[in-house]
Amino acid sequence: MRTTVGIIGGGPAGLLLARLLRLAGVDSVVLEARDRAYVEQRQRAGILEQATVDALRACGAGERMDRQGLVHDGVELRFDRRAHRIDFPSLTGGRRVMVYAQTEVVKDLIALQLDCGGPLLFEARATVVEGADTATPVIRFTQEGRERTLECDYVVGCDGFHGVARDAIPAGVRQTFERVYPYSWLGILADVAPSCDELIYAHSPRGFALHSMRSPLVSRLYLQVPNGEDPADWPDGRIWDELDARFAIDGDWKLDRGPITAKSVLPMRSSVTEPMRYGRVLLAGDAAHIVPPAGAKGLNLAAADVIVLARALAALRDTGSAELLDDYSRTCLRRVWRAEHFSYFLTTTLHNEPGQSPFATRLQTAQLDRIAGSKAAATDFAENYTGLPIG
Amino acid sequence: MRTTVGIIGGGPAGLLLARLLRLAGVDSVVLEARDRAYVEQRQRAGILEQATVDALRACGAGERMDRQGLVHDGVELRFDRRAHRIDFPSLTGGRRVMVYAQTEVVKDLIALQLDCGGPLLFEARATVVEGADTATPVIRFTQEGRERTLECDYVVGCDGFHGVARDAIPAGVRQTFERVYPYSWLGILADVAPSCDELIYAHSPRGFALHSMRSPLVSRLYLQVPNGEDPADWPDGRIWDELDARFAIDGDWKLDRGPITAKSVLPMRSSVTEPMRYGRVLLAGDAAHIVPPAGAKGLNLAAADVIVLARALAALRDTGSAELLDDYSRTCLRRVWRAEHFSYFLTTTLHNEPGQSPFATRLQTAQLDRIAGSKAAATDFAENYTGLPIG
Repeated sequence: MRTTVGIIGGGPAGLLLARLLRLAGVDSVVLEARDRAYVEQRQRAGILEQATVDALRACGAGERMDRQGLVHDGVELRFDRRAHRIDFPSLTGGRRVMVYAQTEVVKDLIALQLDCGGPLLFEARATVVEGADTATPVIRFTQEGRERTLECDYVVGCDGFHGVARDAIPAGVRQTFERVYPYSWLGILADVAPSCDELIYAHSPRGFALHSMRSPLVSRLYLQVPNGEDPADWPDGRIWDELDARFAIDGDWKLDRGPITAKSVLPMRSSVTEPMRYGRVLLAGDAAHIVPPAGAKGLNLAAADVIVLARALAALRDTGSAELLDDYSRTCLRRVWRAEHFSYFLTTTLHNEPGQSPFATRLQTAQLDRIAGSKAAATDFAENYTGLPIG
Repeated sequence: MRTTVGIIGGGPAGLLLARLLRLAGVDSVVLEARDRAYVEQRQRAGILEQATVDALRACGAGERMDRQGLVHDGVELRFDRRAHRIDFPSLTGGRRVMVYAQTEVVKDLIALQLDCGGPLLFEARATVVEGADTATPVIRFTQEGRERTLECDYVVGCDGFHGVARDAIPAGVRQTFERVYPYSWLGILADVAPSCDELIYAHSPRGFALHSMRSPLVSRLYLQVPNGEDPADWPDGRIWDELDARFAIDGDWKLDRGPITAKSVLPMRSSVTEPMRYGRVLLAGDAAHIVPPAGAKGLNLAAADVIVLARALAALRDTGSAELLDDYSRTCLRRVWRAEHFSYFLTTTLHNEPGQSPFATRLQTAQLDRIAGSKAAATDFAENYTGLPIG
């Protein structure tokens, strides 16, 4: 099999790239290791930045999102038993975010891709990328027990943190920057209407908590827990009680309870691989960088990567100029590091490290006070949260 | 001896407080442990925030400052061999800072105090404060070998980090928040005109460096060094070479060299004592809080404390209301923690910790890039640097 752009991974990065390339008249093949049902159900992010929303609309994948997604104009920060709202549009010149689950984005993009005749191969597991520094790189993959080969002009690794594409960059060229955090999130889905229209980020002496939602009928809630925590140690009542304690403010507020339909523990890390291109292999999304979830940057960074990449590949086809493609890694990494910093900043400001000093706790409060009380700091926060321009 | 307000410490905090109280018609006595020559020569800070400048002018201590001080409209940040200027007035609605050494402020305030008949006692070393929770606290001190007592309505500890006033707050009431940093500054004075009109904060792989000045003829330069470094290990040539390496940018720049007249190593710490008041004893300046020097906040926080305190004591005398005085600790601590956070932020963003991860270094660059490239982040920086409103 042969294509112009071989895409490893049928998550949002790979699917959006395939869609953008199709619209630009560049052919591609997507190889996804799992089956369609699995891909359409795995729980991931749920907040789309303004630029991601714009891109999904522009590529024809916005119709259901605009019907079912929830536009959010701000978030609430809670600390010291006080609540402060950060209003995005007034601080950023009209930028907002959209709550629309990654699973739904994936469903929409899969349907679009299949409607247009693909090619999108499920249960096609890439095993190795060869010839990254040649003009004809290949992806070897297995499908229905057979070894197969996809010959490409370019290979794009959208295959996540545990993918194989990154290994195509020789160890001597590749540099990895990493931080693992000393806490995880216990995340739950509950069949209860969200207790507030917007997200609530709570910093409390008991640890971090986040109030979010998947839809007007489904709440998504998170609690900071120690690494290695077993969800089985968290019966429903304990979860709700702990959420109550962490969201508590001086003033009226009640967290509505409902049946918990899913519980899982998410460890968190920051990681960046540089460069994001080697020869004819390019990395995008989680294959190149991981962020802790607090800033909701993972999916959005992935979208930004493939938007930059699709433009570059289209420019190469249209003009013969590889200038944008040669700039791909540098262009993306500038934005990646901004998002890495914001995600780190938000994570370390809101969570309590084990054994954290009282001085460090006071600094966290001082930082949150500044965001709550200063237009400049709130603007910086809102610009980062709603997402910076792409490219 | 008896007075309304007994002030321990004849540094800028104690002297400015005495001046403000005199103008408000509240009598005070200042006890300073050292002799006048010592106090007028000890090298300390050199950057006055807008509000400190305004306060010195308003109390009649601004005449020489306005003749000899250097008004600065911005600072330069250097990192990745690039230079970015942050312009204060355009970002803050006209706020600036003034380079005028603390020693000069002290000289001006001592002259004013003595011209007005004091009382300002040198070589009067406070040994203990008693009766903090009574209506008649006393300061016991030694002068010319004799034990003496100053009876007061209020005692103000402006006696620095190693002073005795803090001990008047019982251990069970007092809480200390602290962080010690794993690096120090090697500071030099050199008889050479500054190589740039403004301060330069440089973050480099070799560590932090700061270009500052005391006057148009005297440069003040700093290098990050390990804790415990001996200045004797830094011959002049090594200092200049290291400064050259850390300030290096792609583009024209030359650091002018001259005779080095002083070298010293400054360790750095953050520390806050809460509350800043217990009964009739109040703490101000370094007696209550220490910041690392990068943000130039130490002297300015001390000035802000005593401005708030002088207003409160004047209000009590004029109206009989202790409301402002009762709010003293809370009012000051809000601003103190903001400055503590800014000083910590600036320090940890610009210095390299021993064994710092490559990820942490990239985050520092990302943060500095954000300040250089975003109006919101630059405004937040400039507002903090030029100083927030007092009270």
